[in-house]
Amino acid sequence: MTIFVVNPNSSQHVTDGIDRAVEPMRGASPVPIATRTLVEGPPGIETQAHVDGVVGPLLAHCAELEEQASAFVIACFSDPGLAALREQSARSILGIAEAAILTAMTLGQRFGIVSILSKSVPRHMRYVGAMGVMDRLAGDLPLELGVQELADETRTFERLKVVGAALRDTAMADVVILGCAGMTPFRNDLEAHLGVPVIEPCQAATAMAIGRVALQQTR
Amino acid sequence: MTIFVVNPNSSQHVTDGIDRAVEPMRGASPVPIATRTLVEGPPGIETQAHVDGVVGPLLAHCAELEEQASAFVIACFSDPGLAALREQSARSILGIAEAAILTAMTLGQRFGIVSILSKSVPRHMRYVGAMGVMDRLAGDLPLELGVQELADETRTFERLKVVGAALRDTAMADVVILGCAGMTPFRNDLEAHLGVPVIEPCQAATAMAIGRVALQQTR
Amino acid sequence: MTIFVVNPNSSQHVTDGIDRAVEPMRGASPVPIATRTLVEGPPGIETQAHVDGVVGPLLAHCAELEEQASAFVIACFSDPGLAALREQSARSILGIAEAAILTAMTLGQRFGIVSILSKSVPRHMRYVGAMGVMDRLAGDLPLELGVQELADETRTFERLKVVGAALRDTAMADVVILGCAGMTPFRNDLEAHLGVPVIEPCQAATAMAIGRVALQQTR
Amino acid sequence: MTIFVVNPNSSQHVTDGIDRAVEPMRGASPVPIATRTLVEGPPGIETQAHVDGVVGPLLAHCAELEEQASAFVIACFSDPGLAALREQSARSILGIAEAAILTAMTLGQRFGIVSILSKSVPRHMRYVGAMGVMDRLAGDLPLELGVQELADETRTFERLKVVGAALRDTAMADVVILGCAGMTPFRNDLEAHLGVPVIEPCQAATAMAIGRVALQQTR
Amino acid sequence: MTIFVVNPNSSQHVTDGIDRAVEPMRGASPVPIATRTLVEGPPGIETQAHVDGVVGPLLAHCAELEEQASAFVIACFSDPGLAALREQSARSILGIAEAAILTAMTLGQRFGIVSILSKSVPRHMRYVGAMGVMDRLAGDLPLELGVQELADETRTFERLKVVGAALRDTAMADVVILGCAGMTPFRNDLEAHLGVPVIEPCQAATAMAIGRVALQQTR
Amino acid sequence: MTIFVVNPNSSQHVTDGIDRAVEPMRGASPVPIATRTLVEGPPGIETQAHVDGVVGPLLAHCAELEEQASAFVIACFSDPGLAALREQSARSILGIAEAAILTAMTLGQRFGIVSILSKSVPRHMRYVGAMGVMDRLAGDLPLELGVQELADETRTFERLKVVGAALRDTAMADVVILGCAGMTPFRNDLEAHLGVPVIEPCQAATAMAIGRVALQQTR
Repeated sequence: MTIFVVNPNSSQHVTDGIDRAVEPMRGASPVPIATRTLVEGPPGIETQAHVDGVVGPLLAHCAELEEQASAFVIACFSDPGLAALREQSARSILGIAEAAILTAMTLGQRFGIVSILSKSVPRHMRYVGAMGVMDRLAGDLPLELGVQELADETRTFERLKVVGAALRDTAMADVVILGCAGMTPFRNDLEAHLGVPVIEPCQAATAMAIGRVALQQTR
Repeated sequence: MTIFVVNPNSSQHVTDGIDRAVEPMRGASPVPIATRTLVEGPPGIETQAHVDGVVGPLLAHCAELEEQASAFVIACFSDPGLAALREQSARSILGIAEAAILTAMTLGQRFGIVSILSKSVPRHMRYVGAMGVMDRLAGDLPLELGVQELADETRTFERLKVVGAALRDTAMADVVILGCAGMTPFRNDLEAHLGVPVIEPCQAATAMAIGRVALQQTR
Repeated sequence: MTIFVVNPNSSQHVTDGIDRAVEPMRGASPVPIATRTLVEGPPGIETQAHVDGVVGPLLAHCAELEEQASAFVIACFSDPGLAALREQSARSILGIAEAAILTAMTLGQRFGIVSILSKSVPRHMRYVGAMGVMDRLAGDLPLELGVQELADETRTFERLKVVGAALRDTAMADVVILGCAGMTPFRNDLEAHLGVPVIEPCQAATAMAIGRVALQQTR
Repeated sequence: MTIFVVNPNSSQHVTDGIDRAVEPMRGASPVPIATRTLVEGPPGIETQAHVDGVVGPLLAHCAELEEQASAFVIACFSDPGLAALREQSARSILGIAEAAILTAMTLGQRFGIVSILSKSVPRHMRYVGAMGVMDRLAGDLPLELGVQELADETRTFERLKVVGAALRDTAMADVVILGCAGMTPFRNDLEAHLGVPVIEPCQAATAMAIGRVALQQTR
Repeated sequence: MTIFVVNPNSSQHVTDGIDRAVEPMRGASPVPIATRTLVEGPPGIETQAHVDGVVGPLLAHCAELEEQASAFVIACFSDPGLAALREQSARSILGIAEAAILTAMTLGQRFGIVSILSKSVPRHMRYVGAMGVMDRLAGDLPLELGVQELADETRTFERLKVVGAALRDTAMADVVILGCAGMTPFRNDLEAHLGVPVIEPCQAATAMAIGRVALQQTR
Repeated sequence: MTIFVVNPNSSQHVTDGIDRAVEPMRGASPVPIATRTLVEGPPGIETQAHVDGVVGPLLAHCAELEEQASAFVIACFSDPGLAALREQSARSILGIAEAAILTAMTLGQRFGIVSILSKSVPRHMRYVGAMGVMDRLAGDLPLELGVQELADETRTFERLKVVGAALRDTAMADVVILGCAGMTPFRNDLEAHLGVPVIEPCQAATAMAIGRVALQQTR
């Protein structure tokens, strides 16, 4: 039995980053943790159409793995297919956005979200509303960096520090969530810089999945 | 230019019912109102997987109609693809659940929803939460009738009266929404029976679409 | 039968502006649209006492028009008498603030309101709270311009751009509502400048009224 | 200087009941407490039109008393003119519904409201929403008794016990508010019967006004 | 019978300030107002451990005073032991944070809180959430001044003006609460400077307690 | 390093039950799981005074274990000392109420809580409010069973079935939380009976703690 962390975009590069993110947890997991790339997905999930469009292939992908799976983690911050996979599967199902938010709710009273682009913010707001936790949201602010700019790590980290500080000082966030599956390398440094907990969502969700595997032993 | 009311399931029978629902409004619309069946859809939209699964074909269907369209109405109470179609299209886009709820908010202070099955209620709750109007919801109660039972109109109307009265008297709803695209024939009688406004969502959304076509003249 | 758009202040100048605002929609309406001035109203509605004080004359005014009316639109952003007129009249009743907010909820996830003066903001907050949509509000910011300053269109538009940008960039609004019945001439330019939908409330409410007239055909 | 408790309906009988309600507090008040009847008001405030319609005369009535007043209490559970009087007057202004709700928030975690008629419930819901305290509301249930039935004290008390128990046991209210200015005589017995605090709103508001008179000494 | 205002920290200096804060109200109170120092408390209540830790001694302190008490006011802005004392005592129990917030809700539509330190903000947020009034909160901003800096009155007042203005102009607060028991001397000047009501919580709670003593006469 | 599950009451019998609850998870945990009894606690935590009163000894108890601890779980459904322990300790800190609620939020859209006694419900409501998740609460209903009645397992299970069904069918809960640390033996049977997930809070929190231990490897 395995925890499958499924990247619903087709970028192996992103999956590799997720794998590195969860690598340190493997020794503490009672079951293997495997990362997967949804080859049918788009190179990146940037629009609501991408979010909705990957659900079908994601469900099919997970259906094939059902018998081998202890849990599934959907590794995209829009949590595509989360409700649908919960209806389909008998396993523990976690989405990285939901898990990051629930984790943040134990580490601070008001969470801030760092988004890549402002056009994602309305999608996040719908989701925070659907989760019923709008009163815990301090703010959601974008880096507003394009793909090429994100490739420049120095620049990205500078923006992370500026946006994180705005969330902490203006929006009064006392915990910050990285609103994207690909910012793991910055987490520790950003947390040290800001002085408040910074949550990497793939790690938060996989950690929660490990707990669920343990919880399954009580059934 | 046309208002397209798209039934995202493949049942022509359902589309015919929607067509009858909007028929009386055609004389008051500045543009034609056309109903469409999404042949790629499932026979009925019953699960979250169905909801997410029709988005791709629905977007493609609407993309082809874009140049002829004044507005699109998505005629399924789960509003599949609403956010995605808004990102894709330059037309006015309405979903029947959203439009029914917004209409209800002008006809009463707390709306009740009549669902077909209890398993739809959590999906509705996520949606009411995403809309940020949970404080206006009185309750969401299911008929709990299967497809065959729904075919019995007498029985269906009896359940509608019981559930509607529970929403009005116990949940204190002062306006009731039919939470499904196929209950038009019962609307007038149920409203007369309950003594509070009863909203048929396809009609509410198409009415709103007619308004939007007028509003487009101001641009 | 007619849609009556009633300006509850006594300024014919304001009514003329409202008439120009709805003029482009007349061709798309199944019934005539008539604007009315409430001669018993104050020259402008600036205080809560004004809001409450016009309700009596407004109800009387509309009672006389009841038999000729398809719908009434109350054309003041405080929606004076909205609930009372709904109790009194059998027609469709819309208020421009409520209709603008409901329309905004279909065009973006978080709406910002541009108020004329900061002293109106608490009144708006009570209203947004009564509507139960506080989680959809991004912010409400004042132009803080007096009557004479508002007469200077260049200056007014400058302030609109500044306040609109603050709502969009700081409060993260993705749709902006003009919180006053008299800013129609700026709508298109402000929308072009901001790059997010800008809603003129008289137009939004009248559009919704047109839809309601169509909806009445289904009864 | 005097605390004026103004009954905005024209019924001297109701004012007399309010006077008896506040009579026991006179000895504990630093200033006289005077009750007033708004002769321009309707015999009873039953509709939103009544609520809005009394604001003008109420403001005039209070303006004349301004110089003699320490505080005004508006003694109708719809709090007519509360916001307007706060804008007009320099005195402490309290409404009996608002004061009863704020008092309830210190005596229990979820308050129930006993209304006379179900048609008042939507008006109350708008108000609880405008106050931003919907999460503290357990429920609002009507006695559904007409004027003549209310004259029968035995019957009224029976209904109060039934509705109060429903609020306590089904809606899980741990404090109950009498949602009307005229139920003082039942308060003590109902509280004894239900075993949870029961709030009479005229008393709650006048008590708060006494506190405000004391608070004014710090300015 | 006496209103006891209990300072749950052991600083007599703080108690003396509270005594001066309530001194002007003594003449308007039907019973004596006595201030008390909880000698078992810490010198200042700065952490959640302090808040929880004083509850036991506070309950014991108040139990001894029960027979002499009309009401108790807990004079620390974290309202330590409020719910517990309400369970233990038959008297009216008020906390200065709760009372200040409820008072603010009658003086403005959105309240701002001035905290001493940012580390108190999450504690306040939990409390505002538990009160169910998050929609009425404009913001909570810290002075971020240490004990020594607070001793410099000029500097403290400068910060109060800056933070108060930020709450008023950026967060759109129309009433400001001093989120600490020791800022009484600044209240009047800050209110004059800001032009919106400023609430000193010990005074607000004691005023409310005076009202409750009057209300007890109706039982 | 160890996960310490601390029962803050002094009943070894309760601790033994908790130990049996978490026993099946030990094989899946990367570190030992030890249960502890707070000997300074009361025999049962039934009042707010008990909740507040155990915080001091609990903090001291945990401070001694800090160096050996990976995580602490506070095993009482009132989560006494949760915020204080988070301020004091550098370890992962979980409370069983918070963890049960967060877990429920991934297994259903609206959670119901089964309380032992109705007098706990207001305390739970304050907590659900402080967590900001009131919109996800379906209801909180009491078994209303005393200690002796609880000793009768047949009777207790009968009440659990009745109350659970009321939460599911009337309050429309789609996940149920056992609102007490001592109902583990009923969980599986109740879940089978109700057909919706039933959460035992000690297990939920310990599972989450196991995840956090894994997450700590990424730091």
